[in-house]
Amino acid sequence: MNNFTFCSPTEFVFGRGTENECGKYVRKYGGTSVLIIYGGGSAVRSGLIGRCKASLAAEDIPCEELSGVQPNPRDDLVYRGIEICREKGIDLILAVGGGSVIDTAKAVAMGAVYDGDFWDFFSGRRADKALPVGVVLTIAAAGSEGSADAVITKTEGMLKRGSSSPAIRPKFSILDPELTQTLPAYQTACGATDIMAHTFERYFTNTKEVEITDRLCEAVLLTMVKETPRVIADPDNYDARANIMWAGMVAHNNITGVGREQDWNSHGIEHELSALYDCAHGAGLAVIFPAWMEFVYKHDVMRFCQLATRVFGVKMNFADPEATALEGIKRLRQFLHSIGMPINFAELGAKEEDIPVLVEKFGIGDGETGGFVHLKAADIAEIYRIAAGARL
Amino acid sequence: MNNFTFCSPTEFVFGRGTENECGKYVRKYGGTSVLIIYGGGSAVRSGLIGRCKASLAAEDIPCEELSGVQPNPRDDLVYRGIEICREKGIDLILAVGGGSVIDTAKAVAMGAVYDGDFWDFFSGRRADKALPVGVVLTIAAAGSEGSADAVITKTEGMLKRGSSSPAIRPKFSILDPELTQTLPAYQTACGATDIMAHTFERYFTNTKEVEITDRLCEAVLLTMVKETPRVIADPDNYDARANIMWAGMVAHNNITGVGREQDWNSHGIEHELSALYDCAHGAGLAVIFPAWMEFVYKHDVMRFCQLATRVFGVKMNFADPEATALEGIKRLRQFLHSIGMPINFAELGAKEEDIPVLVEKFGIGDGETGGFVHLKAADIAEIYRIAAGARL
Repeated sequence: MNNFTFCSPTEFVFGRGTENECGKYVRKYGGTSVLIIYGGGSAVRSGLIGRCKASLAAEDIPCEELSGVQPNPRDDLVYRGIEICREKGIDLILAVGGGSVIDTAKAVAMGAVYDGDFWDFFSGRRADKALPVGVVLTIAAAGSEGSADAVITKTEGMLKRGSSSPAIRPKFSILDPELTQTLPAYQTACGATDIMAHTFERYFTNTKEVEITDRLCEAVLLTMVKETPRVIADPDNYDARANIMWAGMVAHNNITGVGREQDWNSHGIEHELSALYDCAHGAGLAVIFPAWMEFVYKHDVMRFCQLATRVFGVKMNFADPEATALEGIKRLRQFLHSIGMPINFAELGAKEEDIPVLVEKFGIGDGETGGFVHLKAADIAEIYRIAAGARL
Repeated sequence: MNNFTFCSPTEFVFGRGTENECGKYVRKYGGTSVLIIYGGGSAVRSGLIGRCKASLAAEDIPCEELSGVQPNPRDDLVYRGIEICREKGIDLILAVGGGSVIDTAKAVAMGAVYDGDFWDFFSGRRADKALPVGVVLTIAAAGSEGSADAVITKTEGMLKRGSSSPAIRPKFSILDPELTQTLPAYQTACGATDIMAHTFERYFTNTKEVEITDRLCEAVLLTMVKETPRVIADPDNYDARANIMWAGMVAHNNITGVGREQDWNSHGIEHELSALYDCAHGAGLAVIFPAWMEFVYKHDVMRFCQLATRVFGVKMNFADPEATALEGIKRLRQFLHSIGMPINFAELGAKEEDIPVLVEKFGIGDGETGGFVHLKAADIAEIYRIAAGARL
């Protein structure tokens, strides 16, 4: 096991009706003037924004609003948020939404207390301070409610880039599974895929002997395999929604990743798809992850056998371990298909002829990108090709 | 799933040599005058206390020392620690040891900023403030390095009582698995038993549909079942030590307990054994937990079947589920025996004729104690009787 540090100080408030306590938690974490950031009109129409504002009003906390965050959130809205913070003396950002809203809030929080361009933090600079961020989560997916990470797309050049700093971990995150019950099946499945992908990125490692972290990863995956079909079949299943919502946090606050090298190449490879086609991140991952697995599995057949047997219930084929490994990947793809996810470029709306563009945007030139298996540009092109033509 | 809040803000610093960074973390968390609390001479002889003091000296942080903490730590040392804090203007407590040392440090931390008797916090009063506590952990067992809990024994009347407050969660905990490599096999096994018991107390619940928490519990248990025999056979196995050390934290910062009712009756029943006989807490748990299971399993046979099949590899007997449940309990007792733990009163050094005394000290009179199964005094007596006569 490798040396590591782990600190997840976010206060999680979980369960029915907890969004009505957001004013109390804003007060607890020092907010006296709040910017609420959210996405489209559904959060208004459902009454959620109204409930959050009422909870703030009950604590006599004034608020501004910034709406219109889209999936694959853009830099322009971040700049507007930073302006509002400076003009109105905002001292806490309340994100009401999913990963895109939270990541926008995190970027605003960094930019509002920084003299330069916030994009610096998405170009390698590490933020050492930010306004406090609170969250009311509406989608189980990104894990941003408990993570130190944010991903923003720069409209100019469609560059999708990440930033990471302890300063942007939310101070509190309110998770009410009921808020996810109105989510359409497709978005629910995209979120579930993202949660599983966050776990796979950590599961595939060259670090030996990290049994506890392996088992924690498998705990998340087993939960997702059990609960996701239940919410697809019955969107109002509160307990299944609750299990998925908490698994989404556990999958990405890094408790499932400590003590080991991680991979993250599949996320990078997917990011070019969602940046170019504006498809859902989860849908892109459903296409990319099994393809990446098929490309790399020979690097550590036994690790893929472990996944296949412990998570997907495959019987170990001792005469032909590779068959076990491949059967596990096949079951993953079948699972993703069963919950309504695309499994190849055509179903995603991507085009095989764009592969050179995707590889170029990935931008490693003659270099390579590290992780479980080091990949060069030609490897990434091959993974896109496997993904393009994948079948059940 | 039940509503819950979860907040585990402790900064964990894990791996080889990390104790040499303790001065840096004391500084980070505001310590300018430190009280180091530890147990016996072995921490001095091994050079650990010296290394910690050197790390403090490198940051120009002065320190006082309080040694002599014993297993089942007593109130008298807490009073001495509080005195030192007041006389010397201590502003951070550094616990160098296992659960007994950490719990002593937590009690001192509460008492030092309280005008009354610290024992109030072990008699139902909740602490709202405490001096910051840092930890250098030397035994994987109690989980106190990541918990909000402490247990102290009052010498007068041998009362063993607990206290819980977010104020006593350690600010930082340094976990170097190498420090546990010199631990004798018996203490190693006692620690492993305690870790498993912390998980069982949360696993046995009447709350339905908490799959993610079940799976996280099983992740800890599977890790312990794999790694404990390895460290008993090879005390210097760093990776096995590391997995157990991190599992011990995960088992007790409550990530394995959220969203559900918990039990904790076995811990209470054991506390009377270690208070009366001064035996190791883990050894007492090895005797009590299987006995408690045999007494309560009919309350939810399927939950015991889940444990038996998922953790102990028992094949499900669909014609006779009770047989599966009982086989799981049998395997647990065999496992505990295999790592050198006692399995009945005789092996523990307890006496069946003391059962009335134990039950009286437990102190529920005509009432009952809640959890998975509500127990009355007669039930507790029966659990002690099962434990007294247990065989493989």
